[in-house]
Amino acid sequence: MQALWLEENQISLRNVPQPNKPNEALIKIRRMGICSTDLELVKGYYPYTGILGHEFVGEVVDASESGWVGQRVVGEINAVCGSCEACLHGRPTHCENRTVLGIVNRDGIFAEYATLPLENLHRVPDSVSDEAAVFTEPLAAALEIQQQIQIKPTDRVLLIGAGRLGQLIAQTLALTGCSLHVVARHPHQQALLSARGIRLITEAEIQPRRWDIVVEATGSPDGFNLARRAVRPRGTMVLKSTYKGEMNVNFSSIVVDEITLLGSRCGPFDAALRLLENRAVDPTVLITEQYKLGEILKAFDHAAQAGVLKVLIET
Amino acid sequence: MQALWLEENQISLRNVPQPNKPNEALIKIRRMGICSTDLELVKGYYPYTGILGHEFVGEVVDASESGWVGQRVVGEINAVCGSCEACLHGRPTHCENRTVLGIVNRDGIFAEYATLPLENLHRVPDSVSDEAAVFTEPLAAALEIQQQIQIKPTDRVLLIGAGRLGQLIAQTLALTGCSLHVVARHPHQQALLSARGIRLITEAEIQPRRWDIVVEATGSPDGFNLARRAVRPRGTMVLKSTYKGEMNVNFSSIVVDEITLLGSRCGPFDAALRLLENRAVDPTVLITEQYKLGEILKAFDHAAQAGVLKVLIET
Repeated sequence: MQALWLEENQISLRNVPQPNKPNEALIKIRRMGICSTDLELVKGYYPYTGILGHEFVGEVVDASESGWVGQRVVGEINAVCGSCEACLHGRPTHCENRTVLGIVNRDGIFAEYATLPLENLHRVPDSVSDEAAVFTEPLAAALEIQQQIQIKPTDRVLLIGAGRLGQLIAQTLALTGCSLHVVARHPHQQALLSARGIRLITEAEIQPRRWDIVVEATGSPDGFNLARRAVRPRGTMVLKSTYKGEMNVNFSSIVVDEITLLGSRCGPFDAALRLLENRAVDPTVLITEQYKLGEILKAFDHAAQAGVLKVLIET
Repeated sequence: MQALWLEENQISLRNVPQPNKPNEALIKIRRMGICSTDLELVKGYYPYTGILGHEFVGEVVDASESGWVGQRVVGEINAVCGSCEACLHGRPTHCENRTVLGIVNRDGIFAEYATLPLENLHRVPDSVSDEAAVFTEPLAAALEIQQQIQIKPTDRVLLIGAGRLGQLIAQTLALTGCSLHVVARHPHQQALLSARGIRLITEAEIQPRRWDIVVEATGSPDGFNLARRAVRPRGTMVLKSTYKGEMNVNFSSIVVDEITLLGSRCGPFDAALRLLENRAVDPTVLITEQYKLGEILKAFDHAAQAGVLKVLIET
């Protein structure tokens, strides 16, 4: 089968054997999404060799439980051991022995077929299109914020960054009724937010030390520093992006202002599917372009351009 | 009156006028404590000129409400405006216009007399000695941790640092029933903890990525890094000390591990006085030496020695 292979910071379209893991479901991939993490992996953010990709919707074509065959599914990206301390304490996304789809020791989904344990799969409701379902994983990651902290309807919330993940965070935060303002750099990012009635704010307009919660979704030190200036004493900074290398931070002021800094990663798939089913969010407005699997190298070039939102691939 | 004056990183015992603020209570100081913040201020951690000191117990000798005169009191160190956003939202210790006793724009208490607004004062129960009451402010700061986060009886809690503040944190955390272990450098720090049945742990014995909550009370980058290695994914690091300058921190791993970092400062005086009254904590075991106000320069030299716990001064 065809698959996008990453090795030593080079991606190539290869013919590889169809996967075959007796304990896992075999999934025919229907749609795939290119995520910032994929682009970072190609740049060498984390050493990985194998098939790339983790955002997908597909159809189960073989499984140990026959009820799954023919089902349209999305899949959680962490494959877990079920017996380590993190798993036994209800934190499976932090499993100490986890493999991660297309990221850590597990072939990903930029291919015709992929496998995942049945426990990772979630059925996609019939009313949710492939184009929407392929966003389940990043939408779940956006919802992880509300899984970790309470967002009150009266909170002043600042979101910095309106890229692939930022747009989904903006849509989910807006559903809380909070007073949300978003810093968006590119005009088309701004237009998508405005179309949903989400308020924009420029860096110059941001009142310092005034925001109850600041979500940083740029992954840049500039975004971090802007968030630090904006958050009020006893406020919370949610970090939704990974940062390259180390950052210099003044921790004395964080102690004096009693700031909470919170890292946030993978989130709840079931909740994401419910929001897709009831159409409270619409991730499909993010789709910039769709490519065929045979054109995936071109799709990667496109996705890497500044300000581009979601590039999808179909088999 | 005699007072310890700080100016351009130099402390000296001076004769200064007795304070006189019509809207504030006049307090005759009985006992004072030297805090790490005092030592840092002398080193220039924060620019301050004036009378130093903020840990005290005293007697009200003049006040606009006569009921206060003759009362033995301790005092909150933040004098607030009552009308800024922080004050109006129940966060007075973060008042935007605050002065801070012996730290920011307000003469401190290393003197025969000092003044504070009546609203800052708390009566000391008769059964609480001066030697215990003088610890109310740092004991309240220790309790701020439990004001900010829930410590469950089943939590594994690691405390790094057993100095002036660390000892009080150890005593208050132990009251939660949590599984507490303390990293203490000096033998007499260890002995005080062991005498209360609080468990010690060496750096080498600390299991990495296993602790639900890690409290960092050393103020050193080494302590911060040890705390980061010890905390489990989705765990909480509480920062109880200020750090000199900036620190280099890998925030990507904080995002991936979904760590919470929490700055923690001033805490609830009423709760601290209740724990002193019911003898659930005993801060007096920390007293290394007591000096007279006339010997305060010698007291500062003593307090600055490595491993010394609390040096008190009496008028």
